Amino acid sequence: MITGKNYIGNLLSSIGEKTFKTFNPQTNLENDIVFSEASEVEIEQATELATEAFQKFQKVSGIKKSEFLNEIANEIENLGDELIKTYCSESGLPEGRAMGERGRTIFQLRSFANLVKEGSWVEAVIDTADPNREPIPKVDIRKMLVPLGPIAVFGASNFPLAYSTAGGDSAAAFAAGCPVIVKSHPMHAGTGELVASAIIKAASKTEMPNGVFSNLNSSGIEVGVALVKHPAVKAVGFTGSIRGGRALYDMAAQRPEPIPVFAEMGSVNPVVILPNSAKIKGEDWAKTYAGSITLGSGQFCTNPGLILGIKGNDLSNFVKILSEEIVKIEPSCMLHPNIIGAYESNKAKMLEQKGLETRAIVDKELAANYGRQAITTVEGATFLVNTNLHQEVFGPFSMIVQCENTAQLEEIISKLEGQLTGTILAENELENYGNIVDALQNRVGRIIFNGVPTGVEVCPSMVHGGPYPASTDSRFTAVGTESIKRWVRPFSFQSWPNELLPNELKNENPLGILRVIDGERTNSKI
Amino acid sequence: MITGKNYIGNLLSSIGEKTFKTFNPQTNLENDIVFSEASEVEIEQATELATEAFQKFQKVSGIKKSEFLNEIANEIENLGDELIKTYCSESGLPEGRAMGERGRTIFQLRSFANLVKEGSWVEAVIDTADPNREPIPKVDIRKMLVPLGPIAVFGASNFPLAYSTAGGDSAAAFAAGCPVIVKSHPMHAGTGELVASAIIKAASKTEMPNGVFSNLNSSGIEVGVALVKHPAVKAVGFTGSIRGGRALYDMAAQRPEPIPVFAEMGSVNPVVILPNSAKIKGEDWAKTYAGSITLGSGQFCTNPGLILGIKGNDLSNFVKILSEEIVKIEPSCMLHPNIIGAYESNKAKMLEQKGLETRAIVDKELAANYGRQAITTVEGATFLVNTNLHQEVFGPFSMIVQCENTAQLEEIISKLEGQLTGTILAENELENYGNIVDALQNRVGRIIFNGVPTGVEVCPSMVHGGPYPASTDSRFTAVGTESIKRWVRPFSFQSWPNELLPNELKNENPLGILRVIDGERTNSKI
Repeated sequence: MITGKNYIGNLLSSIGEKTFKTFNPQTNLENDIVFSEASEVEIEQATELATEAFQKFQKVSGIKKSEFLNEIANEIENLGDELIKTYCSESGLPEGRAMGERGRTIFQLRSFANLVKEGSWVEAVIDTADPNREPIPKVDIRKMLVPLGPIAVFGASNFPLAYSTAGGDSAAAFAAGCPVIVKSHPMHAGTGELVASAIIKAASKTEMPNGVFSNLNSSGIEVGVALVKHPAVKAVGFTGSIRGGRALYDMAAQRPEPIPVFAEMGSVNPVVILPNSAKIKGEDWAKTYAGSITLGSGQFCTNPGLILGIKGNDLSNFVKILSEEIVKIEPSCMLHPNIIGAYESNKAKMLEQKGLETRAIVDKELAANYGRQAITTVEGATFLVNTNLHQEVFGPFSMIVQCENTAQLEEIISKLEGQLTGTILAENELENYGNIVDALQNRVGRIIFNGVPTGVEVCPSMVHGGPYPASTDSRFTAVGTESIKRWVRPFSFQSWPNELLPNELKNENPLGILRVIDGERTNSKI
Repeated sequence: MITGKNYIGNLLSSIGEKTFKTFNPQTNLENDIVFSEASEVEIEQATELATEAFQKFQKVSGIKKSEFLNEIANEIENLGDELIKTYCSESGLPEGRAMGERGRTIFQLRSFANLVKEGSWVEAVIDTADPNREPIPKVDIRKMLVPLGPIAVFGASNFPLAYSTAGGDSAAAFAAGCPVIVKSHPMHAGTGELVASAIIKAASKTEMPNGVFSNLNSSGIEVGVALVKHPAVKAVGFTGSIRGGRALYDMAAQRPEPIPVFAEMGSVNPVVILPNSAKIKGEDWAKTYAGSITLGSGQFCTNPGLILGIKGNDLSNFVKILSEEIVKIEPSCMLHPNIIGAYESNKAKMLEQKGLETRAIVDKELAANYGRQAITTVEGATFLVNTNLHQEVFGPFSMIVQCENTAQLEEIISKLEGQLTGTILAENELENYGNIVDALQNRVGRIIFNGVPTGVEVCPSMVHGGPYPASTDSRFTAVGTESIKRWVRPFSFQSWPNELLPNELKNENPLGILRVIDGERTNSKI
């Protein structure tokens, strides 16, 4: 049952005066439940509890943490239909998407559970002593990754489950040994509270310290700002707009003690269609991309918002078919009036740009909050000089840039801002476009051959991040088990007594993990 | 031969108007050579060259990079006596230290050469495709670490070789595949130019692209500021003061495209002497610490500036012997009039603090620029309320805090700023002080048992870094081969044609490196 309250550790609390409701974009009506925004007192309580909890939680074994993570997954499953219904009523997304995202969330939790149960992720490195070394004896040093402390996680509007309350950021933080304080996304506060209740139940069942998790409601920016500025918070995870992410990054950088912010932000995910591909496969790709651009009403950070090709009949034909195909696709409901409002306004601003031609736009009568997909084209030279055209329009919108030649194509790519992904469509020609590939590689975190950027596989080889402003720190990924690295730091013990070392570093290797000992990778004891 | 010019790539250049000289603190006289500070034009040229060089250098094989790094080491050795003499004349440090530091620098270069020659450091992770996976086929994704781009490295005053021109930051950046622009430290510009000439020779001999390295002279802050703000620079390495490091961090964070700054800054390196240790080993530790505090005239970032113990006869005895021993040690020359000026002024400010007692201070006649070591004591309660007492005095100075009890000791530790190291001196009592160990662990990057913090081993298990302000990002180390992680980002190829993948990710595993393939760590091909 949704109460509308905050979880301050395991306590439901609503002492603040500010309230709000969520909105059902399908019915175009507010939902019933009244949510209580976290007050300053509640924020203080949550951070204090998290600090206390960290003292214990940082020492909880990998096996116990895996039980906690798996139990969160179980409890999310146990929420059953209520979760799916709440998700749909707060996002306008269809049931299939809700169930898919729930599956992804559970998979992420279980992946991190497996990671910490196995234990080698701490990257234990041991250099043993050599008392006979000249000119000075060598001391024994042993290193492993340890958690940073309490993490603030900001729920994402477009992924109420997989990148919100118990999403990738939180799962990675728990796995690392960091308590989590979630600033719940106001658009899906009910979904957030249900998932929060699952985390709280799991924490209690697996005997995690109270305060290992809190869930704070908020309708404006105040709660988030207070968290990022709070001395007890040691790092921040965020998925959302460039404006929002940059504001948090700036705040964190200006603290007396600056803290890392991993913000996964905007991206237009450039797609390069090379001449032979446009000629031979143009029609197929046009149909595929009509689907990719409109998937989830374009509300994905990997949505292909920019397609680059060399001017000519083949590219024109690709544009023509893409334009025909995209309007055949049934428009879908967007997440919230604010999201569709921003989409329509950003799209309108884009359509006003000199030289931009609208090639397709849905113009039939639609229900409220349904997004009208659009395809536009522009000349390469025009795109180069007007950086307004480089900005993301979050929604089912894409722009095809018709370049004069390969040199212009390369120049355009090299002048793009950082991106999550870049895609190259090619038919037996890729080896001739080394410069294009190099330029694109320098601008993105993931490069795709003959595919679509939408669909982010959760696996160890995934990089979801990239040069700014795709993310605030390209040295980390937001997706996949490697994302745990955002919330940990290396720590060395020098000449420490064996029996007082963490199990990961003891001579006996009681956990049987893979370690590097005197330069050799081994599961053995010393 | 030292020319006083900048290296803009392989070109010696001195078009700017501003000049300066270095200073010999032993003779208390300026050295002869006139150095030309890099002008705006030269900075622009260096960054442009670095950007061009990056296009090629990022693709240079590990074997070729190892040749480059080893050749730098060779060429530094070839500088012979001139380097040692210049080092001594610009730092006041003795020849033995110069030779030791040269050895360390060469060892670091060769360590990184070995790392990249072997090649597994790129952390290749491959998840192969599964076209039959339900509900959607699994794509092939392959990840490895790739270089960030041109790096600005700031030479450190206290390590003219090991943390300057071809020091740890530069060696790590070259190994990663990043061009380096050094802002040479004004106190040892001649040493810097000699080492720069070695890098330039090595780059030419091993056919590295021109611009892979530039060396810029500077006497003030302008050159450094210009580098950190320059769009072509993609990350910054710095070793020095909190004020300097924080200023660079702030500048980098405020750029339109923020970039990572790894600044290794101040630390008082708290040492906890537990009661039984003070009782049984107090005298030994007092003698050992007299040496550690005065080592290199206290000009080490790991200098033990703060010693914490529980009040009583044993601690008093430790203080007494430490005070007696430290004045027996012959004072030594500090690096520069500015350094000793700051030492004397910070020490004087500290001695003015209410409740601080001076227990030992050298008061005999000394040559110019020789540092007077000092030992002070203060009550725990006084230390707790006056954070001025928590600040670093860079030089041969230490403060013993006499705590009322264990609870106060724990409180003091938990209220310290972040530190590079923490040390615990204990005799069969460590297991009774779990809270003390925990508190210290949360404040430091490396914890030492029964030893001294000075002496930073260069090995894979070393962490040299720590919570702010020990460093600006505790997630990285500045020492050891793992420090390469500061200058790289993960990058994914999706469905990429095997023959066009980098060698590290090809099916055939032509480099024979260790990779994780579908969850299994292996040297095998696919």
